[in-house]
Amino acid sequence: MRLSRYFLPILREVPKEAEIVSHRLMLRAGMIRQESAGIYAWLPFGLRVLNKVCNIIREEQNRAGAIEMLMPTIQSADLWRESGRYDDYGKEMLRIRDRHDREMLFGPTNEEMITEIVRAYVKSYKALPLNLYHIQWKFRDEVRPRFGVYRSREFLMKDAYSFDLDAAGARHSYNKMFVAYLRTFARMGLKAIPMVADTGPIGGNLSHEFIILASTGESEVFCHGDYLDMAPPPADVNFDDPAGLQSVFDRWTQLYAATSEKHDTAAFDAIPEDRRLAARGIEVGHIFYFGTKYSEPFGAKVLGPDGKEHTIHMGSYGIGPSRLVAAMIEASHDENGIIWPDAVAPFQVGILNLKVGDSATEAACGALYAELTAAGYDVLYDDTEERAGAKFATADLIGLPWQILVGPKSLAEGKVELKRRVDGSRELIAPSDIVERLKA
Amino acid sequence: MRLSRYFLPILREVPKEAEIVSHRLMLRAGMIRQESAGIYAWLPFGLRVLNKVCNIIREEQNRAGAIEMLMPTIQSADLWRESGRYDDYGKEMLRIRDRHDREMLFGPTNEEMITEIVRAYVKSYKALPLNLYHIQWKFRDEVRPRFGVYRSREFLMKDAYSFDLDAAGARHSYNKMFVAYLRTFARMGLKAIPMVADTGPIGGNLSHEFIILASTGESEVFCHGDYLDMAPPPADVNFDDPAGLQSVFDRWTQLYAATSEKHDTAAFDAIPEDRRLAARGIEVGHIFYFGTKYSEPFGAKVLGPDGKEHTIHMGSYGIGPSRLVAAMIEASHDENGIIWPDAVAPFQVGILNLKVGDSATEAACGALYAELTAAGYDVLYDDTEERAGAKFATADLIGLPWQILVGPKSLAEGKVELKRRVDGSRELIAPSDIVERLKA
Repeated sequence: MRLSRYFLPILREVPKEAEIVSHRLMLRAGMIRQESAGIYAWLPFGLRVLNKVCNIIREEQNRAGAIEMLMPTIQSADLWRESGRYDDYGKEMLRIRDRHDREMLFGPTNEEMITEIVRAYVKSYKALPLNLYHIQWKFRDEVRPRFGVYRSREFLMKDAYSFDLDAAGARHSYNKMFVAYLRTFARMGLKAIPMVADTGPIGGNLSHEFIILASTGESEVFCHGDYLDMAPPPADVNFDDPAGLQSVFDRWTQLYAATSEKHDTAAFDAIPEDRRLAARGIEVGHIFYFGTKYSEPFGAKVLGPDGKEHTIHMGSYGIGPSRLVAAMIEASHDENGIIWPDAVAPFQVGILNLKVGDSATEAACGALYAELTAAGYDVLYDDTEERAGAKFATADLIGLPWQILVGPKSLAEGKVELKRRVDGSRELIAPSDIVERLKA
Repeated sequence: MRLSRYFLPILREVPKEAEIVSHRLMLRAGMIRQESAGIYAWLPFGLRVLNKVCNIIREEQNRAGAIEMLMPTIQSADLWRESGRYDDYGKEMLRIRDRHDREMLFGPTNEEMITEIVRAYVKSYKALPLNLYHIQWKFRDEVRPRFGVYRSREFLMKDAYSFDLDAAGARHSYNKMFVAYLRTFARMGLKAIPMVADTGPIGGNLSHEFIILASTGESEVFCHGDYLDMAPPPADVNFDDPAGLQSVFDRWTQLYAATSEKHDTAAFDAIPEDRRLAARGIEVGHIFYFGTKYSEPFGAKVLGPDGKEHTIHMGSYGIGPSRLVAAMIEASHDENGIIWPDAVAPFQVGILNLKVGDSATEAACGALYAELTAAGYDVLYDDTEERAGAKFATADLIGLPWQILVGPKSLAEGKVELKRRVDGSRELIAPSDIVERLKA
């Protein structure tokens, strides 16, 4: 993409209304714009990150055998009366009356709807196990939305729902998502630590939050420091092997890790002192096993191999991609701006023409742009008339992992400068060696 | 995808509530499920088609220089008061009050919001031309939603908005979208004919509808038969060439084509009799140039090269992907089910194991599945225990373009049967020749 043809409204000023760094940087980098309290438009640069995050989530959900579908945003109140949550949910639910005065709502989550769908179609244990997910906008009418997309009212959520014949099957489904989540966050460059969690309004008796450490996190967390060195399960992990997945789960939960709500001082103190980690954390995922809490009132049953009716066992599994974008910035930035992990960078490479109008730099930039694009890289080519200093500042603010600085001086010696955003290191390199270098 | 692990709830019965063929077939093929009047969940098979449709739209929007972003579903009423449309819009607008009693609405379209965004950031003609689009769920509270996703209340829309310094620039932007739409529909296997249209509540004085012919279409249309033979503009059409695009526009609008609202009997009668086409049509896209209708009340202005302020000229450009899926089925089906064009088929190839449990057919199916998947095809492998007849019926109902029938008899001779959905033709072929054959 040529920057001169793109829409990247950078703010040079620090926006006053933004209290946390991710909110400030997302506004300054032209990623989002507030439309109403807690409701944001994703500008082109922000949407690119959001889409990359969603695609990683999607790939790992699919790998674990979950199947994507898409439920609507607007739901009927009657559906929520079946579970009894319509009155329970309180003012966070955005309630709506349509032109025929029917009571509707903007879905804050989808346990009810998916249970109704599975009840309608699934009659036999042979159709199980089943895990259906969607990535759809949700609405929770927070009384004080703040921190940008970190705590917004309209937000994107990936929510998966598993359906099994019995508790043992449901446990295996839970472990599949547990492993998928470890892989998902690791691929985004995040060290997410699973912690035993309260189940809250979703219900159930087995639940984990996935927490990343960040100084601006909202929760106080306590864990064993070894978590930071653990490698995520490999891509070829066998999701059809219940014992194998259980052992991954056991390995990732044997060390102490808890949020302040579930904190056990004695257990924490039992950790060798140099491995104790007390820090602030951000919740980036939450998984639940809640048995028959929804299938029971909805009458979602299957015929089992024994010829009898069995109420389906369920779990649900959520990640908020819009919130995750903010969380990644909280975890990865410096005083100059965002530092994107390669896997989610909206553009992996920036080309900065440091002297627009100079035929040599323009030819070199044009050739690099064509070559890198052909090699499959997402490239942002700064061909604007801004001065060099402003281009450096923009490239660092928006966090391009690799920046190619093309100026007449080094070009006269057949070189360009390749800068790594993460540490600011620079090297002189021949343009023809760039693709090879990026691959390495 | 192995069918035994997929969620494809086929209905053998014809659903009584469905009045038109696309609605019947989408329900029967397990593509959608009604959640409330005019509100649908997209089941996995349906979502695959919807995504393919969106990706074609996206590629052609990007090719024409439009930039993707994503606006929220919920908008503030105040925004619509600025344009004066809040009171005008009537009962089709889903109006909402949040917990603080602020007036909100579920966006039926986004002229107001995008104008406000561009007003906030764009100050100079140098940032123009600009075309921003998004693909987002909209809501129109139709009094009688019907025909499934063909006329639903919650529906997906791609809406693009162009911004130019003057009317001449806006005309070029209009032509870009005109050409992009011709290519978009052609890639989906549709012959879409541009027809002069009323502008309705969007406003403006230049507008075209893109209409495909289908016997169940809602509009009566009249056009020159030569439209059906015209080739769409090529992929390398130069979108930066105003005169070139204008000539494409002229070529596609010089022949007579009009909906009944705009019908001119005399002009139609001037067409040679054997080239007159009077038929029913379905609107699949609608484009508008409306000048300063929104930028004027919003005060969206830029400094021109003359140092003076100029009110921005705008257009908007809509395609409904969810509706388009239904329209494609209306245009392409037979008594056995859907006939997907290759470009949007949810799976391009089906493999039907006609004797599950037979080691030879299972080995052959497994090898074909691995080979075709590795070659980049989306494959649905029917490994279920259904009898052969039911598998044939399902593959035809859901419209798989290529079906590989793997039975013990032909396999004993080293062959499988390759069936083409569109004409039912079959050929015996060695499994090792399948990929080569599909590529040809």
